[in-house]
Amino acid sequence: MKQKLLSYLIIVFSCSGTCLAQDVQTEIIEDFKPATTNQPGRDYPQVNSEGRVRASILAPEAYRVQIDISAVKYDLIKDTSGVWTGDSNPQDEGFHYYQLWIDGAAVPDPGSLYFYGAMRCGSGIDIPAKDQDFYALKNVPHGQIRQILFPSNSTNTSRRAYVYTPPDYDRNLTKRYPVLYLQHGWGEDETGWPNQGKTNLIMDNLIAEGKIRPFIIVMTYGMTNDTKIGGLRNFDIKPFQTVLVDELIPYIDVHFRTLPDQPHRAMAGLSMGGFETRLIILENLDTFSHIGLFSGGSISPDDIKNTPSFKDKVKLVFISYGSREIESMKNRPPRGPFGGDPKENIDAILKEGINAHFYVSPNTAHEWQSWRRSLREFAPLLFRE
Amino acid sequence: MKQKLLSYLIIVFSCSGTCLAQDVQTEIIEDFKPATTNQPGRDYPQVNSEGRVRASILAPEAYRVQIDISAVKYDLIKDTSGVWTGDSNPQDEGFHYYQLWIDGAAVPDPGSLYFYGAMRCGSGIDIPAKDQDFYALKNVPHGQIRQILFPSNSTNTSRRAYVYTPPDYDRNLTKRYPVLYLQHGWGEDETGWPNQGKTNLIMDNLIAEGKIRPFIIVMTYGMTNDTKIGGLRNFDIKPFQTVLVDELIPYIDVHFRTLPDQPHRAMAGLSMGGFETRLIILENLDTFSHIGLFSGGSISPDDIKNTPSFKDKVKLVFISYGSREIESMKNRPPRGPFGGDPKENIDAILKEGINAHFYVSPNTAHEWQSWRRSLREFAPLLFRE
Repeated sequence: MKQKLLSYLIIVFSCSGTCLAQDVQTEIIEDFKPATTNQPGRDYPQVNSEGRVRASILAPEAYRVQIDISAVKYDLIKDTSGVWTGDSNPQDEGFHYYQLWIDGAAVPDPGSLYFYGAMRCGSGIDIPAKDQDFYALKNVPHGQIRQILFPSNSTNTSRRAYVYTPPDYDRNLTKRYPVLYLQHGWGEDETGWPNQGKTNLIMDNLIAEGKIRPFIIVMTYGMTNDTKIGGLRNFDIKPFQTVLVDELIPYIDVHFRTLPDQPHRAMAGLSMGGFETRLIILENLDTFSHIGLFSGGSISPDDIKNTPSFKDKVKLVFISYGSREIESMKNRPPRGPFGGDPKENIDAILKEGINAHFYVSPNTAHEWQSWRRSLREFAPLLFRE
Repeated sequence: MKQKLLSYLIIVFSCSGTCLAQDVQTEIIEDFKPATTNQPGRDYPQVNSEGRVRASILAPEAYRVQIDISAVKYDLIKDTSGVWTGDSNPQDEGFHYYQLWIDGAAVPDPGSLYFYGAMRCGSGIDIPAKDQDFYALKNVPHGQIRQILFPSNSTNTSRRAYVYTPPDYDRNLTKRYPVLYLQHGWGEDETGWPNQGKTNLIMDNLIAEGKIRPFIIVMTYGMTNDTKIGGLRNFDIKPFQTVLVDELIPYIDVHFRTLPDQPHRAMAGLSMGGFETRLIILENLDTFSHIGLFSGGSISPDDIKNTPSFKDKVKLVFISYGSREIESMKNRPPRGPFGGDPKENIDAILKEGINAHFYVSPNTAHEWQSWRRSLREFAPLLFRE
């Protein structure tokens, strides 16, 4: 099982970038603009209306410079002033990690902001999406993202988490809120949802539009499973489950005005965070009532059969994928304990009377645009009774 | 006056690094350890007990690689596997910005975490200080750092600020707190005090030791003075004063449980943030009662003479510098409206009955260790009556 999980993750991760490698370099539309993810005042990297990324860097003594995005490297060309410039093929809408190669050194682009993913803090770029309005910064009441440090006896340290509180949290000091525990993916950390995920803006906008019941979101580091950072071979859910269920949740329920009971507690996660969510919830049905798995497995009829209280306790199952992930599953159907065709699973558990939802993000892969949209679709379904 | 401010800033900034350039390369103590500011799991950069920084990066096709720290570049040497490694001269205790040069390209070190300063998000490194215990992460109750987005009509956007709330803020919902508005320096932003400054840890530790009256700290972006980011030539305090006094303070007083009056409101800042603090407070003595200038000018007898209500309204003046800044002033005494010898000024205003304090951080320059220590010294003096 451990080995199968590892293989599955590798397949899913490597699929997201290579699809575009055969794209033919045709005429490039010259409407490039600085990316929204640039450092203040930086002209590069830029993005055009096709979703191409144009990188540019001064490196007068360099022999070879490349931009490396979605697992493809593109050569930059040097001009007479020593500035190297070059374009990628069109990228999917949304957020992508990338890096530069300068004479064999993999380095962050000094023009971009930096994001933690793929086991490193490095460059990221947002390709404007047609539906970007839902995570735009608007003139609406804004909630807060709070950095907390909570004591963890099991790991003998103070651990960091981020907590989103809704706009009215500090105005009405008697109101209590449901809580969603929301996990990042492999190689990411607790900054993923606040930064790449645009969690606060998605929530602020949904609340301003009256589309959701306001709730708190808690995001912490989920790679507690291995002492050697990044390892998945010895994947064991227990250490993280202890931190989350025995240490973080009690801390949150004391330090925030939560509705501290099972009906008002949800858990969701993307990719590895989805696997964690599934494992933890199936063992903690007295703690959580709502489940979200974003590009991270599904809930099968077997899960329900093996978990007698499931039908009574679980109020929502939400499964989502990027459309490019679904396409790749046609040739490589998911197998193993985290697998099963997700749509078939949803259809089957719907027949058993489970409140189940399936969402496919159009034209996106195993990347953050799929997960931003998943949060937008998931949030209105939460805590409705 | 505008030109003088610019010159003064340039002098202070360029002085901090060049002092070590003449250091002779003697035998290097081989007790290097990974820096605390490294990305998780990264072995480089490293620091030894002399405060030397050892950088290392794989760049097999490179012609020349250097580490650039405190305004000095040091050559790295390539081994047979294409890994370049090299050491800087000993650095002062505390935090320093740095970067790598690879064949003429200035890039962040992929091993370090990144910090916003010197007008860019880039590498930083902490040289362990003998007194680092005061900003260590300890097993004490922790406050929160909250990211807020507040509406700003004058700049027609939502602006970001960080707010430190003390550990007991969310436990006792009737208690109200004084507020310190705390500004970063030129080329930095509102992340400076939470990240480089270790504000929350300094405060958590001081509160746990019972050394201060708990208060809220608000940190926002202070470079509102110029539409072209980074410009100081057209320095004008008015745009930032409007954001701070007319927009941010009212927002904070509505959204946080503050003591919303002049006796319970302080302002402090480092370098350019100190100049801003001085200018804003002298015009807003009905808003602020406590002043802190860290490596950022001083309050002179002339200021008090020209500001009739000063003696009545101001409860504390705190001026601090790094000892290396004081040393450099011996040869270049500060001049102009922000200048005057700071110690002479303090002695003079003490004689006029002002509650004034002067602090010199030992063996540090115009850098964050001076300002971490300044906050530690300043905080216990605040809101004492």
